[in-house]
Amino acid sequence: MNIFIIGIGLIGGSFAKDVKRHYPDAMIYGVDENPQHLEEALSLNLIDKKSSYAELQLADMVAVTIPVDVLVRELPKILDAVHDDCLVFDAGSTKSLVCKMLKDHPKRRNFLACHPIAGTEFSGPSAAIEDLFQGKTIIICEVEKMAFKLQEKALKIFQQFGMRIRYMNPEAHDKHIAYVSHLSHISSFMLGKTVIDKEKNERDIFDMAGSGFESTVRLAKSSPAMWTPIFEQNKDNVLETLEEYIQNLEAFKQLLLKEDYKGIFTEMNNTNKIKEILKGIPLNKQ
Amino acid sequence: MNIFIIGIGLIGGSFAKDVKRHYPDAMIYGVDENPQHLEEALSLNLIDKKSSYAELQLADMVAVTIPVDVLVRELPKILDAVHDDCLVFDAGSTKSLVCKMLKDHPKRRNFLACHPIAGTEFSGPSAAIEDLFQGKTIIICEVEKMAFKLQEKALKIFQQFGMRIRYMNPEAHDKHIAYVSHLSHISSFMLGKTVIDKEKNERDIFDMAGSGFESTVRLAKSSPAMWTPIFEQNKDNVLETLEEYIQNLEAFKQLLLKEDYKGIFTEMNNTNKIKEILKGIPLNKQ
Repeated sequence: MNIFIIGIGLIGGSFAKDVKRHYPDAMIYGVDENPQHLEEALSLNLIDKKSSYAELQLADMVAVTIPVDVLVRELPKILDAVHDDCLVFDAGSTKSLVCKMLKDHPKRRNFLACHPIAGTEFSGPSAAIEDLFQGKTIIICEVEKMAFKLQEKALKIFQQFGMRIRYMNPEAHDKHIAYVSHLSHISSFMLGKTVIDKEKNERDIFDMAGSGFESTVRLAKSSPAMWTPIFEQNKDNVLETLEEYIQNLEAFKQLLLKEDYKGIFTEMNNTNKIKEILKGIPLNKQ
Repeated sequence: MNIFIIGIGLIGGSFAKDVKRHYPDAMIYGVDENPQHLEEALSLNLIDKKSSYAELQLADMVAVTIPVDVLVRELPKILDAVHDDCLVFDAGSTKSLVCKMLKDHPKRRNFLACHPIAGTEFSGPSAAIEDLFQGKTIIICEVEKMAFKLQEKALKIFQQFGMRIRYMNPEAHDKHIAYVSHLSHISSFMLGKTVIDKEKNERDIFDMAGSGFESTVRLAKSSPAMWTPIFEQNKDNVLETLEEYIQNLEAFKQLLLKEDYKGIFTEMNNTNKIKEILKGIPLNKQ
């Protein structure tokens, strides 16, 4: 089996590691616009061969793991180049635009729109993790638009890699993921900014930061090149969540200004039920 | 050595575990207004004996690890009850009020105002962790107000338990800790609230939440009984940080509304330097 990975970063590289384990005979071709990443992926043994679109007709499967702005530009070209039985899937954090863009593509039946809810705040080939997908959810959109035989092939692999498969339509995906992922990133980036701005002349202050601070600002290490186009493509949903978040913070501020500590206690107490929700989230192995 | 721990929760219980390891001959007396916690602490072997203020004259050292509202009420009584060579210290997340309240107490020289930057989002005796303080910072305020001999005794123990000691005045402590700890808790609680409010009828949605979401809302599991009085005592500083945070979120929202994606990229890119800052934060062992 010839597997192409377009974009050898955290997701593409982790996928390659799982392929190597489950399909030792597979040949992994790497494509990346960053020649350094490609070199690194080769030396890390994530890929077997550096490649380019010119060889795409050899592919039995193509994983397209690149930022969502490059994704909508490149996917039509990739689909144009592959043969009729080739499975192509993406891993982008937005699903509406990519589904819309490919709606009338002659090879639409070769494409599966996917979003594996897996990753870390790091990027690049060296960030790839063994078993990243184990126990994680993968959202699949418009499964019915793919050829039966290729659906079967894709699902088998995702199951082998330990993923929990969930089907949604692209609009529902983008709406809900804004709440449980995109908003967290904005909250984290702006929290990091607030503290850095205030404390820029007080380097010692970070001695005072503990694991709680670390946890809430961890996502502010994420790649701006990956996240800017996500916010762009999901602008309307993200704006809605952000507006609600700001309103809740403003309401908390008003309680504090009014010294309504009973109100503050109640707000926190009601939100404590997040414990139950978080119990179900699989974390990466340490 | 007779050691009293007033409040056998995460911090008091973890302190007890370290005492047991470093001072196997020490006798640990537990005091807690919650009889169930006291019973649990005994059965977990965190304390050797259930006790009360009536026995406080036996104490060589008293760790007062209770919420900051109870702390300012109880500390004067505790200091009244101990003998002249007894070391008393607290572990509260605010330092100005407690220092002010005890300023003229006849046993002021027996008291050390401390804030170990250590903990998790959990509480109660079962949340106690072996080696919690290893590598963590402890902020000490107004060290000069304590008797020399007792200073020495306290510092020796904190060093034995692996803590990095930092001295600050109470006002500076409260101002900076608002940025690197108190604000993170509000950000996390309100993020949790935003998502729960929106998604209350869509339980499946939390299948879409990944480790990034988990990280940013983790602190929303924290105890409202502990955090409400912290926000009350540090109201002015917390309001300032919250106001700046809301302004930064609002500015991000405006960039998104104006579709200024270059501006959004720049904001995130500038905040990426949080990577360097976070490198220095010691985390709990998994």
